[in-house]
Amino acid sequence: MVSERGLAGRRLATIRLAVEYDGTAFHGWQRQSRARSVQGEIEAALQRITGAPARVTGAGRTDAGCHAAGQVASATLETRLDAARLQAALNAHLPRDVRIVEAAEAPPAFHARFDAMRRAYRYLIVPPPAAIRRSQTWVRAMKCDAEALHRASQPLKGEHDFIAFSKATPDADSTRCRVTRARWSGRGGRLQFDIEADRFLYTMVRKIVATVVRETESGHGAGSVRAILESRDRRAAAPPAPAHGLYLMRVRYPRIGWVPRGRMNVVG
Amino acid sequence: MVSERGLAGRRLATIRLAVEYDGTAFHGWQRQSRARSVQGEIEAALQRITGAPARVTGAGRTDAGCHAAGQVASATLETRLDAARLQAALNAHLPRDVRIVEAAEAPPAFHARFDAMRRAYRYLIVPPPAAIRRSQTWVRAMKCDAEALHRASQPLKGEHDFIAFSKATPDADSTRCRVTRARWSGRGGRLQFDIEADRFLYTMVRKIVATVVRETESGHGAGSVRAILESRDRRAAAPPAPAHGLYLMRVRYPRIGWVPRGRMNVVG
Repeated sequence: MVSERGLAGRRLATIRLAVEYDGTAFHGWQRQSRARSVQGEIEAALQRITGAPARVTGAGRTDAGCHAAGQVASATLETRLDAARLQAALNAHLPRDVRIVEAAEAPPAFHARFDAMRRAYRYLIVPPPAAIRRSQTWVRAMKCDAEALHRASQPLKGEHDFIAFSKATPDADSTRCRVTRARWSGRGGRLQFDIEADRFLYTMVRKIVATVVRETESGHGAGSVRAILESRDRRAAAPPAPAHGLYLMRVRYPRIGWVPRGRMNVVG
Repeated sequence: MVSERGLAGRRLATIRLAVEYDGTAFHGWQRQSRARSVQGEIEAALQRITGAPARVTGAGRTDAGCHAAGQVASATLETRLDAARLQAALNAHLPRDVRIVEAAEAPPAFHARFDAMRRAYRYLIVPPPAAIRRSQTWVRAMKCDAEALHRASQPLKGEHDFIAFSKATPDADSTRCRVTRARWSGRGGRLQFDIEADRFLYTMVRKIVATVVRETESGHGAGSVRAILESRDRRAAAPPAPAHGLYLMRVRYPRIGWVPRGRMNVVG
């Protein structure tokens, strides 16, 4: 395994990482004192490589059980490794349920969270019974198809106050989000929901999925989803769909575009 | 949970089960005294339901780490439950990494292993790095595409002595198998190998996958695969590809057809 001894040749570098993880054995992205987190594992691996404490920032704080095909993280550290060697070193030091899928040097001011202009999430549903994908999908018998779900979710597009679909917003300065994509696809009970927005509130995607499914199955559809959105009442939305069906797919940045590139077929 | 108390209304029934399992936490299909097995879990669940010891027979003995989208099992037991209720009871009693995806009453003489006329396996490969599917695929950078792999595997079709692709044959009366399908598909490094035969020897699919990949990447292709097959020399084939890329997909029976029906898109 690669590690750095001594200080010769080191420079201060800001790096941008794209991270795939299986969220099953994590208590979410965010570092916690007593629970295993993705952020904590990456910081520990960086410290083993550089010998110095490291702090990484993620574009989105995924919940316990949620996965990522493309979380984006930034870190500033003293290293003599270039991005490719740092990626290899991280993958050698990280546990197998976290992989660095892209690494690149970034401008010193790059910040994975503040600079993100769009985030893409995917939610997967498969019919029961299911054993192999039980921790990677919502295993649920659907009474409606992708077309009906798609129609019902169209009122979410555009800029709205999404407070009705948030659980709590301790750190949100605003509950307004601009949804640029809300697309259901799939058939035979195997469904995929792709949603993109400039920002997402806590549990927003999971509450949207559960609410759109509930309203579509009950025959209310788009009108009801619009009414729930406009009510700005958290009690109007359904409780969140399970975390293990949700994937942070990629994050878009000015000048860079989507990070990572070409990983959209990793899950589906 | 459903269980049966007393003997009223019971009859001797032979049942046919189609079983999906995530092989990650199992030491294979076959019952073992000190290790967790799929057969052992199903037998324990049946005993909890009927109150009597039960024995189930599987169509194929998958190795530790191998998965099944459609293993087929048979059992004869005294029960008053019909097949649908037995399926529900089993799924209520079984751990979440095993699911009964089909259950049907079968003729008294039905035997999941001896009656099977064809078995279908699938092997999955994805490019590194991969976290989410690391226990469900062979994570490997490929230097060849599906077309080249497909061409190289065509000499395997037909009836041959497959001893070169077996690890050991303690219980095999013969090492002859009739391969009716050997098809590679996929692109962008995400590959799928589908193989069907009347019977398979121990580790045969995994040795075929590893050998076809090795010979195709080295530029030798079909001629070399044919030579290895015809050598009947176990040392000529490559060591088996990892177990966690392998899935028993379904099993074909006279008069019944493929069991289970329509589960081929569960993995891919």
